[in-house]
Amino acid sequence: MTEHDLVRELVEKNSSKIVLIVADGLGGLPMQPGGKTELETAATPNLDRLAAVGTSGSSVPVLPGITPGSGPGHLGLFGYDPLEFKIGRGALEATGIGFELGPHDVAARGNFCTLDSAGLISDRRAGRIPSEESFAVVEKLQAVKIPGVETFVKPVKEHRFVVVFRAAGLDGRVADTDPQAVGVAPLDPQPLAPAAQKTADVAKEFVRQARAILADEPKANGLTLRGFAAKPALPSYEELYGLRAAAIAVYPMYKGLAQLVGMTLVGKAQSLAEQIDQLAKSWNDFDFFFLHFKYTDSTGEDGAFDQKVKRIEELDAIIPRIEALKPDVLIVTGDHSTPSKLKSHSWHPVPTLLVADTCRPDGLEKFSERNCLRGGFGIFPAKHLMLLAMAHAQRFGKYGA
Amino acid sequence: MTEHDLVRELVEKNSSKIVLIVADGLGGLPMQPGGKTELETAATPNLDRLAAVGTSGSSVPVLPGITPGSGPGHLGLFGYDPLEFKIGRGALEATGIGFELGPHDVAARGNFCTLDSAGLISDRRAGRIPSEESFAVVEKLQAVKIPGVETFVKPVKEHRFVVVFRAAGLDGRVADTDPQAVGVAPLDPQPLAPAAQKTADVAKEFVRQARAILADEPKANGLTLRGFAAKPALPSYEELYGLRAAAIAVYPMYKGLAQLVGMTLVGKAQSLAEQIDQLAKSWNDFDFFFLHFKYTDSTGEDGAFDQKVKRIEELDAIIPRIEALKPDVLIVTGDHSTPSKLKSHSWHPVPTLLVADTCRPDGLEKFSERNCLRGGFGIFPAKHLMLLAMAHAQRFGKYGA
Repeated sequence: MTEHDLVRELVEKNSSKIVLIVADGLGGLPMQPGGKTELETAATPNLDRLAAVGTSGSSVPVLPGITPGSGPGHLGLFGYDPLEFKIGRGALEATGIGFELGPHDVAARGNFCTLDSAGLISDRRAGRIPSEESFAVVEKLQAVKIPGVETFVKPVKEHRFVVVFRAAGLDGRVADTDPQAVGVAPLDPQPLAPAAQKTADVAKEFVRQARAILADEPKANGLTLRGFAAKPALPSYEELYGLRAAAIAVYPMYKGLAQLVGMTLVGKAQSLAEQIDQLAKSWNDFDFFFLHFKYTDSTGEDGAFDQKVKRIEELDAIIPRIEALKPDVLIVTGDHSTPSKLKSHSWHPVPTLLVADTCRPDGLEKFSERNCLRGGFGIFPAKHLMLLAMAHAQRFGKYGA
Repeated sequence: MTEHDLVRELVEKNSSKIVLIVADGLGGLPMQPGGKTELETAATPNLDRLAAVGTSGSSVPVLPGITPGSGPGHLGLFGYDPLEFKIGRGALEATGIGFELGPHDVAARGNFCTLDSAGLISDRRAGRIPSEESFAVVEKLQAVKIPGVETFVKPVKEHRFVVVFRAAGLDGRVADTDPQAVGVAPLDPQPLAPAAQKTADVAKEFVRQARAILADEPKANGLTLRGFAAKPALPSYEELYGLRAAAIAVYPMYKGLAQLVGMTLVGKAQSLAEQIDQLAKSWNDFDFFFLHFKYTDSTGEDGAFDQKVKRIEELDAIIPRIEALKPDVLIVTGDHSTPSKLKSHSWHPVPTLLVADTCRPDGLEKFSERNCLRGGFGIFPAKHLMLLAMAHAQRFGKYGA
């Protein structure tokens, strides 16, 4: 019996409210041996008070030693095994710019490149043309028309863009056209399965028209396509957990990830305070709230230890406003660690805290990486967090008599 | 290689003795924030002394957040993955009343119901008739005779009973006949697989004869059947572990679960003291002893915190009598938690203690939920407990050269 089958069998509905706060990249490292992490350095009186009554643990996003991107990091927190459920790169890129993929879409990542007079690639990134220039080129590509297919071309950054084909019968199993070398021509889109022949043909026609439109561009006169992918088949929160789930996020990537599991995007909050305003406003309409806080990750990526400490303190300060809503289950965690020392995502377990009336005390008095190792949840796979959330919300029946 | 294949490959025999004490529903919760659990409140000088020399841990019965019934709870402790090995509801109900299922049996749960003059259900539970009345009706059903099939009808409680069909070629895949509604007729037994056609036919004939016999009953003039199930195919303790295993339990359910894995029921003990008498008496005849203590669960189910504390102290007081037998491995654990605060089974990990000469000290001096989190076994799946028992009994060879 799979874990999801078990969940479906046990789900019961009630009026409980679950709040999941994802402080992106929350986990950290000391800058020097013997030092403290960002979270250990931050003054977090509210989180510490909750740690004393709740249960802590260290969540492992994918497997020990595996550093996740935002996609697998969030899928794990949402209860989807990130090794089983994968978001193709084109689908994640589209999601990341806020493009809502439909069931008949196939998305691919595009790169502008420079072709010489013989049609061979002389620069795989078109001289990394500035975004403004690239955006203008993307605008020209809106003229591509393929009969029976809706085509969307959206800029990302510099030489990067996304193309989405929408039509019945498309399939993401198409090979990359980037030969990963200069001095050779871009490859033709090739189907990797018979069912993807139509998609390959559509992509080929897109490339043909685009090449004609871009013929006179000084740098971006060619393009390659990579990571073809349809919208991943993820059971929705409603179908799996019986939860009406709302996502309150500022950045498109996290809104997109939430939409992929069927959460409803609510509000247009641009700050943490506005996110809490929205939480209060939507309180009666949903059972589950995913609240994403970006800046613990971006400061970590910048290597800005002190800034990350401040962002953690900012999050701590807002906790009483969430408590005032009286959630039945309140979770604070991250989708992965982003230690300022490494200036990047990392594989280290993520400090996690769950507060509910049904928590068994684990004797901790502070929310920190060191304490979370000794917490009542131990070191656990992130994909099990939703099982604990559902249990503490008393939304699971008993397994077996 | 499955875990059971590994076990079979490594098993070696010796003269060691293993005692597994299952204090049903042992784990608990504080009634108030900042308080102690039942186990933390109890005076347990013997268990604390053993915790100092043994190894502790927190066992997870099924998965984090999943609350097990007695069936999956015990299967896990016995070393059978409760998500892989399932006991069908009819088989568990028969087991729970002490009916020993054979290899050719299919059991179903029966409900008496009230039918109106048109044969439609007017009360799905026959007015919850008292057990005495129900027992008399069950007695009448002994008159059912189906050629080539042995039929057993046994009372459970109030409107509930068990029916077991015994014949070659039966199969549990038959749909429930309870329409889960009033104003409609009971459903006919339908096979859910071609191999279950015979069983469905037998059940139909049983219902036909029963309806005739019950026609004049004022309330229990109809019946529905649910949870058809054959005896689960579980490898026996002897086959899997090479252990001659004895079960010393007071209640039918736990005797039945032990029988399903091939343990031998010994004695007719009615109290913990008598169970220990029996343990001593059977000491030379078996390698493994499962001793079940019910009252830590029943007091928890009643929400009787102080009574549960007393029952834990009762168990502690008897420990020296078990130690006097000099078991090579002594384990004290539970099949799940039953916090008095929740008045029900719960998903919280179960405090577990193993004592053997081969234990590595983990620095704990008391047996409690909080300490067990920091124990040498950490937080571990219950299904792995038997691996540890076998290892500490030095009944496993080395894996690989």
